[in-house]
Amino acid sequence: VAPVLLRTSVNDFTEEPVSDEVVDGLLRAAMSGPTTGDQRPWHFVVIRDQAVRNKVPEIHRFAHLVPRAPVALLVCGDETLQRDRGFWVQDCAAATENILLEAERRGLGAIWLGIYPIEGLVQAFRRLINVPQHAVPFSLVALGYPVERGRTVSQYDGSRVHIDIWRDKGASTCQE
Amino acid sequence: VAPVLLRTSVNDFTEEPVSDEVVDGLLRAAMSGPTTGDQRPWHFVVIRDQAVRNKVPEIHRFAHLVPRAPVALLVCGDETLQRDRGFWVQDCAAATENILLEAERRGLGAIWLGIYPIEGLVQAFRRLINVPQHAVPFSLVALGYPVERGRTVSQYDGSRVHIDIWRDKGASTCQE
Repeated sequence: VAPVLLRTSVNDFTEEPVSDEVVDGLLRAAMSGPTTGDQRPWHFVVIRDQAVRNKVPEIHRFAHLVPRAPVALLVCGDETLQRDRGFWVQDCAAATENILLEAERRGLGAIWLGIYPIEGLVQAFRRLINVPQHAVPFSLVALGYPVERGRTVSQYDGSRVHIDIWRDKGASTCQE
Repeated sequence: VAPVLLRTSVNDFTEEPVSDEVVDGLLRAAMSGPTTGDQRPWHFVVIRDQAVRNKVPEIHRFAHLVPRAPVALLVCGDETLQRDRGFWVQDCAAATENILLEAERRGLGAIWLGIYPIEGLVQAFRRLINVPQHAVPFSLVALGYPVERGRTVSQYDGSRVHIDIWRDKGASTCQE
């Protein structure tokens, strides 16, 4: 099975630490993702500090495992680094997905927590991590070694596939 | 080197066709990406038709290789499939990145052409592919076997990495 087809579901993390070398590998994977015009409109904050991680569940409702994750990576977008405005969201998403895939390859479990475009979350993470105004907190990836390795393989859905010209399977089309 | 660290730059495609089986593998990879709340707000249009591909360079300025690519995949978002509105862009970006990585793994070359959020491009692809109003053309991935296999490895940029709390390296911060 191709690596890209597998994901580990995480119910809890072990106490095994995640080395700086592994974090470095994850950051290299993130920065290897494609970006619009190769403009790389991102920053990454490596969050190991327990006190900081403990505060995350107070601001994000799906973050109960973040205090138990040895490390979390905050991916931030930065439109001031971009000529082609408006594309930083997808560039940051590709970087986040690369972190998840590299984590999987290295035997880690990863949880992608969405932040942007929920304004309240963006502001809360901005304050917690001191993110300057030119950058936008985009996603938080909680990382560690999973206690149990549950494998999830998303299902193929043929109803979402169209050939050459979209012939809608049910809903109304926009014929002009 | 981890698969996620490598990308093939594509200067031209050979005439070798891309089989339905390979396209199926790419679509499975795309649909294996994480989506917000597992809501999978995407559709995929498999574009093989030469006449359709020939029209793409007329509407997208970086699309000169699309007529020479045996197949192109149009990734579309669909907010009506989503409870958590606003997250479909990043879900579609993760799906697109999965297509690129799976293509790389299979020896294909892939070119990610951005469409959304450029409104003129969105409308032009909507007309060309007959995309209904509930969906939004997001990206087009041109695929084929590359004539030359140039490897690009994006460089690590330590200035984009911050530890625990963002301490800005130059720009002004938002201390409150």
